[in-house]
Amino acid sequence: MTGCQPEGAPPPGGEFEGVAQTIREHLAAQGFMKLVGAELVALSPGQCTLSVSRRPDLLQQYGMFHGGVTAFLVDNGTTIAAMAALKPGRAALTAEYKLNLLSPAMGDQLVCRARVVKPGNTLVVVAADVFAVTGGQEKHTATALATIAVLDLDALPKVAR
Amino acid sequence: MTGCQPEGAPPPGGEFEGVAQTIREHLAAQGFMKLVGAELVALSPGQCTLSVSRRPDLLQQYGMFHGGVTAFLVDNGTTIAAMAALKPGRAALTAEYKLNLLSPAMGDQLVCRARVVKPGNTLVVVAADVFAVTGGQEKHTATALATIAVLDLDALPKVAR
Amino acid sequence: MTGCQPEGAPPPGGEFEGVAQTIREHLAAQGFMKLVGAELVALSPGQCTLSVSRRPDLLQQYGMFHGGVTAFLVDNGTTIAAMAALKPGRAALTAEYKLNLLSPAMGDQLVCRARVVKPGNTLVVVAADVFAVTGGQEKHTATALATIAVLDLDALPKVAR
Amino acid sequence: MTGCQPEGAPPPGGEFEGVAQTIREHLAAQGFMKLVGAELVALSPGQCTLSVSRRPDLLQQYGMFHGGVTAFLVDNGTTIAAMAALKPGRAALTAEYKLNLLSPAMGDQLVCRARVVKPGNTLVVVAADVFAVTGGQEKHTATALATIAVLDLDALPKVAR
Repeated sequence: MTGCQPEGAPPPGGEFEGVAQTIREHLAAQGFMKLVGAELVALSPGQCTLSVSRRPDLLQQYGMFHGGVTAFLVDNGTTIAAMAALKPGRAALTAEYKLNLLSPAMGDQLVCRARVVKPGNTLVVVAADVFAVTGGQEKHTATALATIAVLDLDALPKVAR
Repeated sequence: MTGCQPEGAPPPGGEFEGVAQTIREHLAAQGFMKLVGAELVALSPGQCTLSVSRRPDLLQQYGMFHGGVTAFLVDNGTTIAAMAALKPGRAALTAEYKLNLLSPAMGDQLVCRARVVKPGNTLVVVAADVFAVTGGQEKHTATALATIAVLDLDALPKVAR
Repeated sequence: MTGCQPEGAPPPGGEFEGVAQTIREHLAAQGFMKLVGAELVALSPGQCTLSVSRRPDLLQQYGMFHGGVTAFLVDNGTTIAAMAALKPGRAALTAEYKLNLLSPAMGDQLVCRARVVKPGNTLVVVAADVFAVTGGQEKHTATALATIAVLDLDALPKVAR
Repeated sequence: MTGCQPEGAPPPGGEFEGVAQTIREHLAAQGFMKLVGAELVALSPGQCTLSVSRRPDLLQQYGMFHGGVTAFLVDNGTTIAAMAALKPGRAALTAEYKLNLLSPAMGDQLVCRARVVKPGNTLVVVAADVFAVTGGQEKHTATALATIAVLDLDALPKVAR
């Protein structure tokens, strides 16, 4: 990951492990993550990968993944990547993002890779790319740019369980 | 609705009824629309309203509607509003959108209202606003701006049934 | 302006006058504002209007206002509108914006109207619309949505004079 | 440039030379390009680089490049990169873009590099990054994502001279 790790991302190690644990707890408490059946398949400082497998109830009228599934992966992926670049005790909330749909989301799986472009104490800028995977072949299906707001975890409600 | 109807929108009447019928068929064929439990509650030339009621499996870790649900409503709502401004035989596909989350999506219901800002033969620009409703009171929770591409319905695959 | 003034905007009066004065000083110190020849033609809590008159050196190859002039008005207009919704001693810096070009920017004048959609202590969301004016007739030429970051004026460098 | 050249970009050679010539003529006819003093410093299929040197009349109140200058580079750079991925006889017009300002645009020079992310016959998606250069050192100051519409050159007005 040398060369890809954003300047200012916390060093891997004990501190990051605490942040990673909090991220996993948040995801486990998201009803919508379970409904969609998405999984966190990779997590490192300032980066993450989410994926979801094709099911009829995730599709739109032409048999492709619904744009809302792509958007869900981008929303969650960019927030997780931002939080994975923060110090413990800080939380990340989506302020805004822009999403370009590049090609039909036709495939067995949708994979979203998000990475911090610019870390910060109050705002983190994150890019994400979504790929449709068929038989191991990836096709670029969406690209996104997000602004994530940083807050104190203490300022937020308790995580629902 | 006088004054709100976008310049260039097709006149209500027989022609719009055909378009509206096609939109309803598309929505009925969307597995993800059913999974989320969203409903089309209003449809007129260049405008539509979608809503979804609170369920635990639509929420994130703080008990609010997941950002992915808001994004799904925006993705679908802006495409429907664009298609509702087109002539029969034309279809609308999302090219891109930008979404600002304005306040926590806490409420009994999420309502998305989308309206065409600028109609066109190849691109339609659509704005959308999402409101969280509690006891009949609406709170502005997201605002979005989308670019929708126009295609011939014939150029698209058959709608899955 | 009743009904348009954003919830949470500071009340007009002495406090706003101080903010307005700071905004005018900032604009007077912008070399690029002078180069382009833009003017602040209206300023009120959470809102502003900028305009610029047609000159050959503001145009692109087809004789329309260059997209960069439209973007400049949006960049400046959204930041000014945000600052005009803040308390004295606070400053506004553009975090990001998205801009849709709707029609050719052909006319004698370009007018940008920006208004706060959602005030806030750390982020302000602002919408802007740009119109091309010919013989007093306005044509909608661009629409934009911006996220503006709020800082303490003291945290910023001295204004260059 | 192997590996970076977008799939679908026209092959370098005679065909591209004609497109490059048209791009240079368009830029030479842009009054605003001259006013800002920007230069096209590199052009290849689906990619371009623009730069501009610091002058007092390009700055804002803190002595940094005005956000409007950054936006101008992004607007022009993304359109040029898109056109440089098209066949002769086609033109590129900005439909929309989103721009994140990442750090103060303080430096001797501003450099914008734009590259096609997804070519297409009606829409081209282009990414751009802007760097502030001081003493040969580059700092990432902005990142952008644009949607560019493709038209026939014949459908556009004559280039003003």
